[in-house]
Amino acid sequence: MRQMPHDIGHEFFFDLSATDQADVLLAQTPPERRHWIRLLAPDDVADVIQALPEDQRLGFLSLLDEPTRAEVAALLAYAEDEAGGLMNPRYIRVRPDMTAGEALGYFRRQAQDRASRDVPTHAYILDDNGKLLGEVRLTDLIAGDPATPVGYLMQAEVVTIPEEADQEAVARLFAQHGLAAAPVVDAEGRMKGVVTADDIVAVVEEEATEDIQKLGGSEALDAPYLKVAFGHMVRKRAGWLSALFLGEMLTATAMAFFEEEIAKAVILAMFVPLIISSGGNSGSQASTLVIRAMALGEVKLRDWWRVIRREVAAGLVLGSVLGTIGFLRITLWHAITGIYGEHYLLVALTVFASLIGVVTFGTITGSLLPFILRKLGFDPASASAPFVATLVDVTGLVIYFTVASVVLRGTLL
Amino acid sequence: MRQMPHDIGHEFFFDLSATDQADVLLAQTPPERRHWIRLLAPDDVADVIQALPEDQRLGFLSLLDEPTRAEVAALLAYAEDEAGGLMNPRYIRVRPDMTAGEALGYFRRQAQDRASRDVPTHAYILDDNGKLLGEVRLTDLIAGDPATPVGYLMQAEVVTIPEEADQEAVARLFAQHGLAAAPVVDAEGRMKGVVTADDIVAVVEEEATEDIQKLGGSEALDAPYLKVAFGHMVRKRAGWLSALFLGEMLTATAMAFFEEEIAKAVILAMFVPLIISSGGNSGSQASTLVIRAMALGEVKLRDWWRVIRREVAAGLVLGSVLGTIGFLRITLWHAITGIYGEHYLLVALTVFASLIGVVTFGTITGSLLPFILRKLGFDPASASAPFVATLVDVTGLVIYFTVASVVLRGTLL
Repeated sequence: MRQMPHDIGHEFFFDLSATDQADVLLAQTPPERRHWIRLLAPDDVADVIQALPEDQRLGFLSLLDEPTRAEVAALLAYAEDEAGGLMNPRYIRVRPDMTAGEALGYFRRQAQDRASRDVPTHAYILDDNGKLLGEVRLTDLIAGDPATPVGYLMQAEVVTIPEEADQEAVARLFAQHGLAAAPVVDAEGRMKGVVTADDIVAVVEEEATEDIQKLGGSEALDAPYLKVAFGHMVRKRAGWLSALFLGEMLTATAMAFFEEEIAKAVILAMFVPLIISSGGNSGSQASTLVIRAMALGEVKLRDWWRVIRREVAAGLVLGSVLGTIGFLRITLWHAITGIYGEHYLLVALTVFASLIGVVTFGTITGSLLPFILRKLGFDPASASAPFVATLVDVTGLVIYFTVASVVLRGTLL
Repeated sequence: MRQMPHDIGHEFFFDLSATDQADVLLAQTPPERRHWIRLLAPDDVADVIQALPEDQRLGFLSLLDEPTRAEVAALLAYAEDEAGGLMNPRYIRVRPDMTAGEALGYFRRQAQDRASRDVPTHAYILDDNGKLLGEVRLTDLIAGDPATPVGYLMQAEVVTIPEEADQEAVARLFAQHGLAAAPVVDAEGRMKGVVTADDIVAVVEEEATEDIQKLGGSEALDAPYLKVAFGHMVRKRAGWLSALFLGEMLTATAMAFFEEEIAKAVILAMFVPLIISSGGNSGSQASTLVIRAMALGEVKLRDWWRVIRREVAAGLVLGSVLGTIGFLRITLWHAITGIYGEHYLLVALTVFASLIGVVTFGTITGSLLPFILRKLGFDPASASAPFVATLVDVTGLVIYFTVASVVLRGTLL
C-alpha cells in the first residue's frame, strides 16, 4: 500500500473489511497509523477497534482527535449488531428556525470533511433537547428560497429506528419502506445518529450467511470459506455433527427394540432408510420455510397455531403423495421381480400408512421447532435440516414398526 | 385507501409491494388508476406492470404520459433480476463544460418531481454519445463556486454496473464497496440508469430467501409463507419431495441387495440409520458452506479443486471424530448390557471404519454437487441438505455393508 498513489491507496483502504483494515494498521508505523485511522469515519473506526486485539485498542483510540475519540467511545458502548452499533454519529442537525441557506452551509462543511465518503441526503431537525422533530431533503433545501425556515420544508413523518433495535429488525425496516437513510433515536426520541442503506446491504448479506450456515447444520463461520483456518472450520462443524450423532444414536436403541420384528421379517429393514429420510426431508422443508419467514418478520411467535395447522394439513397431503408412490413402487416391483413375498400387499400398505404418519410428524416437528427455539431464546435458524432429521428419525422408526406390527400381525410378524 | 388523507394514502401506497400495488390498481376506477400509477417512478411502474395479468398490461401502459411510457417500455425489455431491471432510468446527467450552478438546477427540478421519493446524491457527467465520464457529488456542487465547470469537480473513478449483470452480482458490488448508488452502463460505456442501495436491500433479502428455501429442499415460494395459497405451497414442496423419494428408493434396492447379510447379522441393521444420517449431515454442512460462499462470490468455479481437497481432509477428521464416538458407544454399551454379542469389538470396528468412509464421501459429494450444478447451468442452491443426503444414503449403505463383509467375514457373516 505504501507504493500506491495516494488516492488509490485511500480507495483501497476504504474498501477493505474492518478486519483487514485492522491488519493493515497493525503492520504500520505509529505515524502511519495516525494518518490512516484518522481517514475513517467514526463508525468505521469503531469497527476497526473491535477487530483489534484487546491490548491494542486503547493505543489506537489515543491516535484520534478528541471529538472523534468521544464519538467512537460512545459507539463502542453499543453491541456490534444493534442499530447504535451500525449508525454514523455524524449527521447534519439543524434547528427548526434556521433558514434553508443556513442548513445548506452544514452540507458544504460536510463536503470538505475528507473522512466521509457518504453523501448526506437529509438534514435532521432537532429541538433544544436533541429530540427529533423531522427531516428535510437536501434537494428541497436547494430548490426553495434560501430564506425559508427549514421548519416549513420539514417532513415530520419519519421512520425512526430505536437505538437498541437488532440489526435484523433494522434491515427489515429498510427493505419494507425502501429507505435510503433513517435516523436512530433513543427511548426519549433524542436523535443519536444515522443508518444508511449501504451499511444495511452488508448487514443483510451477513445475517443471511449466518442463517444459511446454521441451517446447513454447522455453527456460523467467522470468515469467508476459503480464508477461514482449517482447524477453526472443522471445530465449528464437529460440534454440531457430534451432537447430531449422539442424538442419532437413539435410532440404534430404537432399532434394537424392534430387533425381533426385523429378524422375523428382514423385508421391514429394507424400507427403513426410505421411511425415515422422508420424514427428515418433509421436516426440513417445513423448518426452513418457517425459519426464513420468522427472519423476515412474516411469521411471529403468536402465529404458531396457524402455522402448525397449516403444516399438519401439508403433512397429510404430502404424506399421501409419497405413500401412494411408495405403494405403487412396491406392488409394481413385486409384479416384475416377485421379491417381496406373498404378503407384498400388506408390506405396501405398511409403507403407505407409515409414510403418512412419518411425513406429518416431520412437518409438525419441523415447523414447531423454530417456535420452541425462539421461545427459549435461541436462534430459530439452529433448527437445521440435520437437527430436524435427527429428531424425526427416531420417531419415524417407532411409527413405522408400530404400523407394521398392527398391519402384519398374524402374517409376517 | 379512499378514506385516507391524501398524504398518508400516498405513503401507504408507496410502501406496498409491487404485487399489492397491482391489486390496489386493479380494484380502482380508470381515473383513479391514472392518478395513482402516475405517482410512481418509472422503475416502480415497470415492477407493477410485471405484476399485472398479461391482458391488463397494455391498458395500464396507456395511462402513462408519453416519456414515462417510453422509459417503462425500455425497462420492461430487461429481465426483472438484472441490473437493467433494477435501475431507475431517471438520473441527473450533465455535460463536462456545464457549471456547478447549472448542475444544481437539475437537482432543483428533481425536487419538484413528486413521483420520486429518492433523493439523488450524484450528478453523472456524460459525453455527447451518452458515455459516462464520471460523477460529481451533490455536496461538492453546493460547496464550490457555482461558476466552476463540473468537469473540475468530477470523480472519474466510478464503480459501474453492466446493464445485464445479475442482481446477485450487483448486490455483491454494493456490499463490497459500500456503495450508496451506482451507474448502470451498456457494453459501450453509455449510461442507462442508476441503482441505489435501498433497492439492493430488498434484492439481497429476496435472493437469500430464495436460496434458503431451496436449501430446505423445496422450490422457492413466490410470496410470504402465511400468504401463499395452501395448494401452491404444497405443489412447490411435493415436487422436490417426490423426486427425493424416488431417489431414496434406491436405498430399498441397496438394502435388498444386502438382505442375506442382514438376515445373518440383524445387528448390522441396527446401525443403518446412524451411519447413513452421518453421511447426510456432513454432506449438508459441506454443501451449504460451499453454496453460500459461491453466492457471495468467495468461491468461484475454478476453486473446485481447492475446495474438494479441503473437504476430503475435513471429512477424514470429522469421520474419525464420529467413528471414535461410535466405537466408544458400542463398546461401553456392550460392557453394560452385553446386547451386541461376542463379536461386539468387530461390530464396533465396522462402525468406526464405515463412519470415516461415509462422512468423507458425504463431504466430497456435498462440496462437489454445487460445482456440478453451477457448471451445468443450474442454481447451486438446489444442492439442498435433503438432496445431498439422498445421494449419500445409497452409497453410505454400500460402504457400510462392504466394510462389514470384510471385517466380519468368518465371524458374523
